[in-house]
Amino acid sequence: MAGEAAPLVTLLTDFGTGDPWVGSLKGVLWSIQPAFRIVDLTHDVPPHDVFHAAYTLYRCYRDFPPWTIHLCVVDPGVGGDRRPLLVITDDRYFIGPDNGIFSFVYAFDTVSRVIHITADHYFRRPLSETFHGRDIFAPVAGWLSKGIDSSRFGEVVEDPVTLPVPVDRIGEDGLLRGEVCAVDRFGNLLTNVRRQTLEALRESAGGRPLQVVLGEREIPVVSGGYGQAAPLFALVGSSGLLEIAARESSAAEATGIRSRGTPVAVRAG
Amino acid sequence: MAGEAAPLVTLLTDFGTGDPWVGSLKGVLWSIQPAFRIVDLTHDVPPHDVFHAAYTLYRCYRDFPPWTIHLCVVDPGVGGDRRPLLVITDDRYFIGPDNGIFSFVYAFDTVSRVIHITADHYFRRPLSETFHGRDIFAPVAGWLSKGIDSSRFGEVVEDPVTLPVPVDRIGEDGLLRGEVCAVDRFGNLLTNVRRQTLEALRESAGGRPLQVVLGEREIPVVSGGYGQAAPLFALVGSSGLLEIAARESSAAEATGIRSRGTPVAVRAG
Amino acid sequence: MAGEAAPLVTLLTDFGTGDPWVGSLKGVLWSIQPAFRIVDLTHDVPPHDVFHAAYTLYRCYRDFPPWTIHLCVVDPGVGGDRRPLLVITDDRYFIGPDNGIFSFVYAFDTVSRVIHITADHYFRRPLSETFHGRDIFAPVAGWLSKGIDSSRFGEVVEDPVTLPVPVDRIGEDGLLRGEVCAVDRFGNLLTNVRRQTLEALRESAGGRPLQVVLGEREIPVVSGGYGQAAPLFALVGSSGLLEIAARESSAAEATGIRSRGTPVAVRAG
Repeated sequence: MAGEAAPLVTLLTDFGTGDPWVGSLKGVLWSIQPAFRIVDLTHDVPPHDVFHAAYTLYRCYRDFPPWTIHLCVVDPGVGGDRRPLLVITDDRYFIGPDNGIFSFVYAFDTVSRVIHITADHYFRRPLSETFHGRDIFAPVAGWLSKGIDSSRFGEVVEDPVTLPVPVDRIGEDGLLRGEVCAVDRFGNLLTNVRRQTLEALRESAGGRPLQVVLGEREIPVVSGGYGQAAPLFALVGSSGLLEIAARESSAAEATGIRSRGTPVAVRAG
Repeated sequence: MAGEAAPLVTLLTDFGTGDPWVGSLKGVLWSIQPAFRIVDLTHDVPPHDVFHAAYTLYRCYRDFPPWTIHLCVVDPGVGGDRRPLLVITDDRYFIGPDNGIFSFVYAFDTVSRVIHITADHYFRRPLSETFHGRDIFAPVAGWLSKGIDSSRFGEVVEDPVTLPVPVDRIGEDGLLRGEVCAVDRFGNLLTNVRRQTLEALRESAGGRPLQVVLGEREIPVVSGGYGQAAPLFALVGSSGLLEIAARESSAAEATGIRSRGTPVAVRAG
Repeated sequence: MAGEAAPLVTLLTDFGTGDPWVGSLKGVLWSIQPAFRIVDLTHDVPPHDVFHAAYTLYRCYRDFPPWTIHLCVVDPGVGGDRRPLLVITDDRYFIGPDNGIFSFVYAFDTVSRVIHITADHYFRRPLSETFHGRDIFAPVAGWLSKGIDSSRFGEVVEDPVTLPVPVDRIGEDGLLRGEVCAVDRFGNLLTNVRRQTLEALRESAGGRPLQVVLGEREIPVVSGGYGQAAPLFALVGSSGLLEIAARESSAAEATGIRSRGTPVAVRAG
């Protein structure tokens, strides 16, 4: 951080906004680190949906300045024996439960260390059994931002829990295979197909146009934003990931696809 | 502003809160201007409903200190050829797409300049085709708050896109005519009838009580808040605009009116 | 406050997030006190549900640093003759309407003074009849945080409006009686039974296990978080209050109980 800028922490949870839990998190964060700038990513992750949280984090965390602290609490195993983690990449921090919520970080970023948080003198007292967001993760974020060295929070571990993260790949048959990972507010189908994989396919295609194959449908890959002539089209969205959109309406509705895991393929010509 | 106060920016979008787009906006705002104080007006504008956004902005922006920056992103034309705008009145800034979202500002405020933002060295790189809120509007807000002169962002234009804004007027027949513009959370019917127009009518009425005519109904204009004896009544709400309310319930439900554009009239006696 | 930390204010309302009222509150707060750190507790209190607001406040306010200002605006009587209040305990402030919204504070905290806010030179001008959150409560919070002595806002009153707050008690028959006060996002049934009352029962039980009696059901009181073998169980939640939870699902759904006021009892053995 540039020194003059206050530390930045983002929050991603399944807490909703009707209960006061997000407020309590912020109360603890600001009790320890009054200078925090706090950003809500979303609190509307479906309850206990760790994959959805992991993918949502992946969509946005690179929009934040270096050394932002990303606090992620979708934590169905709270109070049991799942480990609390501090994950450090080459330019940011992630804090949350060891349940796979950082799987996309592990798969696509450069992780320098994963620390099992055990230094309980940093925890809030009394430690509840049901709200480690407030009692463990927020305090650790606070102390970390105050300059406590990451090694003070616990020991490095090599085996963090990892969800099966779908990775976009070009097969020997020349097809780029990926899948739908989420549906956004506007009904766009968001996938795991990255811009660079698409570019690699495009290069090997020698200028032929690209098509997304989605079930029986063939959908053109376009550029130029959402104002397209085609009723259905695919483009690289704001997270650098391929998405399928519909002209002035919902692609989810137009295709009937609402569930993640639906396979998509991209081919040339 | 008094000099010591950090710059203030408000956000009004149709992004919802389930996707991480609002968070990304804030990440970019704070990357450029770490001192920003950020206020969410609402992110629940119905997708692509520019009129609703324009009216919502009109309801509240005067509650903010002078030289607040109002960032407004309901932007169905993103990635096409609609222009990005910086609108300057005598005491505040508005930044957003040129699609009519500032129509109420143009109609009822003193606009000193409208600038077509073209200085792309202020944009975020890479520039996405689908998220100019993050890549153009937020960076411009950031740089503007850092003291970059508004003339540096582009050329003045004289023809911003304007929606047909309903203006409340007293006709030759002595009727004040307006319309319903929105329904609020409590079911109150919010109109475009301004306090000053109502006062003008009241003056010409020489003390006779005022009545709102809404379809077949006659509804008394009252003062004293929502605790009224009448089942339906009209009063000047907190934005200085006439609204129709129901005693301890929803006027929208009581009248069956939920759509904007429904005509209302006010008459004396 | 420690001097270096900026003042902290929390907001609890029934405004929802679709209308710009919460934004306007913050505009006024920051107009007066640019240094405020602002926390949203929730704005999703059901419209006019003062009890729900009172209980929600009770669940979380102790998670905030000393001398936090808690601004609470669920205010169906706005514009009528209900009094605006400033409530001072031994380490925090509460500001809001005199309609019982602070009933749990009165019942379970140490109140040092309740002040009827009458000093209207601190109010926003023009004073609306429908939005005292913006025009009275927010300005008072601002001026209070600037160091205005609380006595300057009005006179002490001894008779604030109080809702019937359910208090958990151990009866002569040895039963601890309480009730369901809310259902949270995960479907847990939250009660008014405090950890200390439960401990008192446990002590008198001489080691026998505790059971919650809920209608026909007997539900074990457990420790160790939500990962339990029993399909239904009760534990002390993060607010120090007993709650009834279901294994990986919703206790509200499992029991059919969704309404507050449902009696619960706890007994030994």
